[in-house]
Amino acid sequence: MTSIAIHPAVDSGFRATDAAFAGGTLVCKCASNPVKVRIKSDIAHNHACGCTKCWKPEGFVFSVVAVAPTESIEVQENGDKLAVVDSTALIQRHACKECGVHMYGPVVREHPFQGLSFVHPERFQESGWAKPGFAAFVSSIIESGFDPAKMDAVRAQLKTSGLEPYDCLNPGLMDYIATWMAKKSGVLAA
Amino acid sequence: MTSIAIHPAVDSGFRATDAAFAGGTLVCKCASNPVKVRIKSDIAHNHACGCTKCWKPEGFVFSVVAVAPTESIEVQENGDKLAVVDSTALIQRHACKECGVHMYGPVVREHPFQGLSFVHPERFQESGWAKPGFAAFVSSIIESGFDPAKMDAVRAQLKTSGLEPYDCLNPGLMDYIATWMAKKSGVLAA
Ligand SMILES: [Zn+2]
Ligand SMILES: [Zn+2]
Repeated sequence: MTSIAIHPAVDSGFRATDAAFAGGTLVCKCASNPVKVRIKSDIAHNHACGCTKCWKPEGFVFSVVAVAPTESIEVQENGDKLAVVDSTALIQRHACKECGVHMYGPVVREHPFQGLSFVHPERFQESGWAKPGFAAFVSSIIESGFDPAKMDAVRAQLKTSGLEPYDCLNPGLMDYIATWMAKKSGVLAA
Repeated sequence: MTSIAIHPAVDSGFRATDAAFAGGTLVCKCASNPVKVRIKSDIAHNHACGCTKCWKPEGFVFSVVAVAPTESIEVQENGDKLAVVDSTALIQRHACKECGVHMYGPVVREHPFQGLSFVHPERFQESGWAKPGFAAFVSSIIESGFDPAKMDAVRAQLKTSGLEPYDCLNPGLMDYIATWMAKKSGVLAA
C-alpha cells in the first residue's frame, strides 16, 4: 500500500515531547520579513486536523494544530502582514497575506474555547513541543477532495502512527464542550 | 460498578436480526387510540443516539433510532394526534401529542439524508428488526444532564454491549455526508 501524505510531523515520526517546553516563536514561511509570533507558554491538545479551514503544508492532507492561551501570545515582527481569513468563523485565523501560513487563531466569542488560540506548532523555530495526540475531523478531508475510497486506508495509517482517528474532536474535548453547554443551559450546576 | 440504563433494547441484549424483516407497524404508547404508522420496508443504520432531540424511553440515557425511506411510510391510524416537535430542525420529528412518542421524522430539506425518515424501531409491534450497530452523539448525553464524571463508564458499557461509541455519527455515515458535501461544492465529481 502506498502511504498517504498525512503531515510531515506525523509521517516522519514524532519528535520527542519535551516536558519542559515553555513556548517559543512561530515563524511564517516568508524568506524575507517573516511574521514572528511569540507564544509564552506550552501548547495543549496538539492534534492532526482534517477540517477544511485549518492551514496545511502543501501536499499534505492534515494540519497539525494545538492551543495556547491567547493572553500568552504576542505578535513580535511584521504583524502588518497578518489578516483574518474569515471573520465570521469561530476561530479568527490570522494568516500571513504573503505566504498564507496561519500564525494564530484566537476564539473570541463566548464558547468553551474562548480565551484560547489555535496555533500550528510546526512553525515553532524551536523543537520540543508535544507530539499530536489524536486525529480530528478525519471524514472532513473528503470535503477538500480526498478520495472517499481511501478513507479506510487513512484511518488505518493514522492508527499506525499512534493517532486515534475521530470525525469530530476526541472524547475528552467533546465531553468538555458538552459540559460547558450543560452548565450554560442550567442542566448542570455551574 | 452499577450499570447505567442505556436503553431497554441494549441493556436486555439484542433481539436477533431477522434478515427478512420487511417493515411493520409503529405504535405509540397511548392506551387508547394509539397512533399507528406503517413502515413498508426494512430499516437501516439502526443505532443508539445520545442527542438531546431524539425521543428516549423514560429513565434511559439513549434513544434507539434508524432510518427508512420516507416514501415507504404511511400514517394509518390517529394521525390527527401527531405534531411536529420543532419545525426548524433538520429532522421533522412527528410526535404523539398525548404520549410524546416520536413516530417518524422525515428529512425534507436538501441534505445527504433527504428522503429518509428517522424512526424508533422499539415501537414496532413486530420483532425481528436489526439490532443497533453503534452509538452516536455519546458526549451529548451530558447536555441532558448526565454526569460528566461517568462518561468513561458509559463508553465502556456501550463497547461491552457491542456498540462502538462515537461523539458524532459512525465513520461510514460521516464519510457519506462529507462525500455528498464535496460533490455539492464541486470538489469531487458528482
Ligand atoms: Zn509569510
Ligand atoms: Zn400516543
